[in-house]
Amino acid sequence: MLRSHNCGELRKTDIKKRVKLAGWVHSLRSFGKKAFIDLRDRHGITQAVLGEEFKAVYSELPRESVVLVEGAVVKRKQPNSAINTGEIEVIADKFIVLSKSKPLPLEIFNPDIKTTEEKRLEYRFLDLRRPEMQRAMEFRFGAETLIRQYMLLKDFVEIETPFMSRPTPEGARDFLVPSRSFKGKFWALPQSPQIYKQLLMVAGFDKYFQIVRCFRDEDLRADRQYEFTQIDIETSFSEESDIQELSEGLISLLYAQLLGIKLKRPFKQMSWEHAIDLYGSDKPDTRFGIELIELTDELRESGFKIIEKQIRADGIAKAILIPEELTRKETKAMEKIAKDYGFPGVAWTWIQKELKGGVAEQLEPIKTKLKKLGKGTLLILAGDWARVCEALGAMRLAAAEKLDLRKGLDVLWVTDFPLFKWSQEKQRLQSGHHPFTLPKPEKLSDLFENLSEQELLDIRSQAFDLVINGTEVGGGSMRITDKKLQERIFELLKIDRKTAKEKFGMLLKAFDYGVPPHGGIAFGFDRLLQVMLGKDSIRDVIAFPKNKVGRALMEDGPAKADQELLDELGIKTGD
Amino acid sequence: MLRSHNCGELRKTDIKKRVKLAGWVHSLRSFGKKAFIDLRDRHGITQAVLGEEFKAVYSELPRESVVLVEGAVVKRKQPNSAINTGEIEVIADKFIVLSKSKPLPLEIFNPDIKTTEEKRLEYRFLDLRRPEMQRAMEFRFGAETLIRQYMLLKDFVEIETPFMSRPTPEGARDFLVPSRSFKGKFWALPQSPQIYKQLLMVAGFDKYFQIVRCFRDEDLRADRQYEFTQIDIETSFSEESDIQELSEGLISLLYAQLLGIKLKRPFKQMSWEHAIDLYGSDKPDTRFGIELIELTDELRESGFKIIEKQIRADGIAKAILIPEELTRKETKAMEKIAKDYGFPGVAWTWIQKELKGGVAEQLEPIKTKLKKLGKGTLLILAGDWARVCEALGAMRLAAAEKLDLRKGLDVLWVTDFPLFKWSQEKQRLQSGHHPFTLPKPEKLSDLFENLSEQELLDIRSQAFDLVINGTEVGGGSMRITDKKLQERIFELLKIDRKTAKEKFGMLLKAFDYGVPPHGGIAFGFDRLLQVMLGKDSIRDVIAFPKNKVGRALMEDGPAKADQELLDELGIKTGD
Repeated sequence: MLRSHNCGELRKTDIKKRVKLAGWVHSLRSFGKKAFIDLRDRHGITQAVLGEEFKAVYSELPRESVVLVEGAVVKRKQPNSAINTGEIEVIADKFIVLSKSKPLPLEIFNPDIKTTEEKRLEYRFLDLRRPEMQRAMEFRFGAETLIRQYMLLKDFVEIETPFMSRPTPEGARDFLVPSRSFKGKFWALPQSPQIYKQLLMVAGFDKYFQIVRCFRDEDLRADRQYEFTQIDIETSFSEESDIQELSEGLISLLYAQLLGIKLKRPFKQMSWEHAIDLYGSDKPDTRFGIELIELTDELRESGFKIIEKQIRADGIAKAILIPEELTRKETKAMEKIAKDYGFPGVAWTWIQKELKGGVAEQLEPIKTKLKKLGKGTLLILAGDWARVCEALGAMRLAAAEKLDLRKGLDVLWVTDFPLFKWSQEKQRLQSGHHPFTLPKPEKLSDLFENLSEQELLDIRSQAFDLVINGTEVGGGSMRITDKKLQERIFELLKIDRKTAKEKFGMLLKAFDYGVPPHGGIAFGFDRLLQVMLGKDSIRDVIAFPKNKVGRALMEDGPAKADQELLDELGIKTGD
Repeated sequence: MLRSHNCGELRKTDIKKRVKLAGWVHSLRSFGKKAFIDLRDRHGITQAVLGEEFKAVYSELPRESVVLVEGAVVKRKQPNSAINTGEIEVIADKFIVLSKSKPLPLEIFNPDIKTTEEKRLEYRFLDLRRPEMQRAMEFRFGAETLIRQYMLLKDFVEIETPFMSRPTPEGARDFLVPSRSFKGKFWALPQSPQIYKQLLMVAGFDKYFQIVRCFRDEDLRADRQYEFTQIDIETSFSEESDIQELSEGLISLLYAQLLGIKLKRPFKQMSWEHAIDLYGSDKPDTRFGIELIELTDELRESGFKIIEKQIRADGIAKAILIPEELTRKETKAMEKIAKDYGFPGVAWTWIQKELKGGVAEQLEPIKTKLKKLGKGTLLILAGDWARVCEALGAMRLAAAEKLDLRKGLDVLWVTDFPLFKWSQEKQRLQSGHHPFTLPKPEKLSDLFENLSEQELLDIRSQAFDLVINGTEVGGGSMRITDKKLQERIFELLKIDRKTAKEKFGMLLKAFDYGVPPHGGIAFGFDRLLQVMLGKDSIRDVIAFPKNKVGRALMEDGPAKADQELLDELGIKTGD
């Protein structure tokens, strides 16, 4: 090794030792005949003292150059308690510049100087020198290590599944990889190892896990990535509660070991229906109140005409009470949210000693009731249950953001998800979770024959999400293991037999040869880390992420491919 | 859990307990009013006893069905010492068939009944039930666990690098992924995280590792896969010997912990030149002799005209002595190898008390010398050094195969690889290892200006391979960190400045901002496991491999993609 110690390990007990250190020039202070260098590496900072004999070298040495210092460890006259090595310094008798740095294109150590994220990603190899990014990467590895230790103790086996897989439908868009040997055909990068892990259950690996990259070609919103890492788990002979218990142990371990936070177990549980009804979200942020208030009965015959009309048309009326008097501008912002959800506007009033402003007059008949709710701004919507709830849920979050209520930590399971949801775009049923999810047993007889569409939409499934601070960090379910039921589900999803056989043939075939009851869960690892570390973006917990629009700024990707290679693949690009 | 215990854990101490077991019907023996089931899961086999009340169920129950057995644990009258649970059995009072199996399409438990590999891969979810495959997967996970524990102890950080990367040239063919958002542009699946790990060194992560999938679109030979797993390692401020020492610790740990074999350290070292010269291979199988014998001086003026001519034309003459009298047919096979390497044939003779057969007459002048070599069949080639050595090396391996000498275990480093090799096809220099490899310092001054082509080919590099039993399982090197040298190497490789900047711009740019000296190694994890387990193919250590020609038989991939998706990508296939 070029170094005998790293820059974070020398202590008083090392005094008089001869050492070799190497690292980056974090700072250099020159005082005529002497210079002090803060020598930095991932492990810490050590002060090196350079005498006049090195003046020619250090007087022109830029920050962030890489140097080698050899010399004796001595006691520091004025200890620096801010660093671990603060009691010593190294008097250099050998000093070599290994690599001279140009001035950095971005500031990485002064948090007061802001850099755009674009610049940070373009120079990620420098951005990763920031102590915050180094800690994030170490935290990530720490989490991975704990996960693997936990799963090992629980007798799970990590098994690697293929990345070059067969294209599948349903869910997000696949990334395709053209095959050269079989021209005109394609591989797909897996959106998850779902089918492989189910086949591993058929193969008898009753406890499987994998920390694995997954791929989705979705339009990147502010905080998604084409590729993301998943903690993927599947077990045989288990039930919902077993998977939840295992997961709680895992998440609790991570919080305890990495953050020193003890989570209360068992985690809270809330049905999907309750979550929507009370928080207007299937991933409710339950760290604060502002719950949705049911007003349908109150407003049914109150004389508030527009709302009465909605209720008569099978709708409902709900409200939230924001414990503050919103300004006109703030109310406008809430109205904007209502409009985004397709409402013409939002009915609002202030509840003070009396109702005041907005629709105060129309609410006069029920004011006694409303005044019991407390003071603040009341926002009312009426119409379709789901839409009313979701819109109010969004307003609730906006209000919490403004009032700075999104603090603390809250963990819960959301359970009993609907098996199907209606796709307006495709005009057919879609899976709530994925097509392999096992329905609750209640209506299972007769394979859902003779059920109306609404009855189908009312079927609940054995699916559950883990939600932390209003973010979905994991989703699990029990799986279908009955071929007839699986085929019937495909049928209801309008996946015809031929397609089903083509795309999921191996799974259907496997059901013929002894399949154990099984279920599992997958956690979004990047998302979990983001929530644990309180980062604004998952990009801050990934070493080399794509930017917001899906470009790799450092590599300048995606890029043109060699024509020769495209010819070999037999594919032509549109332009 | 549906089960209270797995099928491998009940013991005498559990007698009288009430238990629930679940698993596969491994075998079923019915005796009129009673039946015995060997119930199997990944953990073992337990005998369950079914009374007459279950006759209707068990009398028609196929093997490999999944069942649930509930009942009391009792002492077994005739213990079965072949299984861990052999002292007990479970008397069922509840017996439920969870999943009925059809007759299996392949035999998985009787090793005498051979199945084609194609069938095994088509039904991989059943093939993986074979105890041998289950052990291989557990062995693989065991190795991964040890590797991660070791690297953690050595203060390394595992960091995940992107799979959607920028296309790069040099080396094997990239797999491309068309970008939808940036039509006409592509991502590439990385052949290795080489550039990312070097950038992590620039970022200050001085000890990086990753167990990571890599991708190469090469024509599959018998024993390659499009995707393979690599143990990827990079360290800063280290030298060749540090990386070798770290690697030896890792490999020794795996052999000791997983196979109970203690490897002798430090591992043997052999220069590339010596390996070629003595074994005709840069990955010599040194478990047996049959070393290459130098005969140039002896044959220079011996009167053996054809050989003399080769030697005069700057060639050499070498031989191997196979310690057996090859038959005419076996000699023909050796001749075939010589011809594959471009020789017109091979000169052979038997060394007994005298020389006999083949070219005995021409060798008469040096027979005293030859007879000292021992007895057997002598095979002589003359011509270009490298070609002679390689051809004899191939014959050497063929002979060892025939004589069954490829047994035991031998581990060694091959060092001092050439920096460049000559590509006949491209008529230019190519990298011996990869373009980032640091040359040995000797000829480094003046950046190789004024060197002839031969002198360039004579440059050695700081690159080294780990070879076990004649298989290359890992390759490492020190890396270039000087921008000028790196640019000069690109120049010598005929990569023009524009291309170099386009493809490796980020690395060249990074060299401007303080780059530490660094180097690393990568092990082919599948290959290492194959060697450790003595498997014929890497497919036997991968859960879901592609077959020999690169098809996924179980999934039936690659497959046609939806036209809609292709349209969105803006690409057309040739057919």
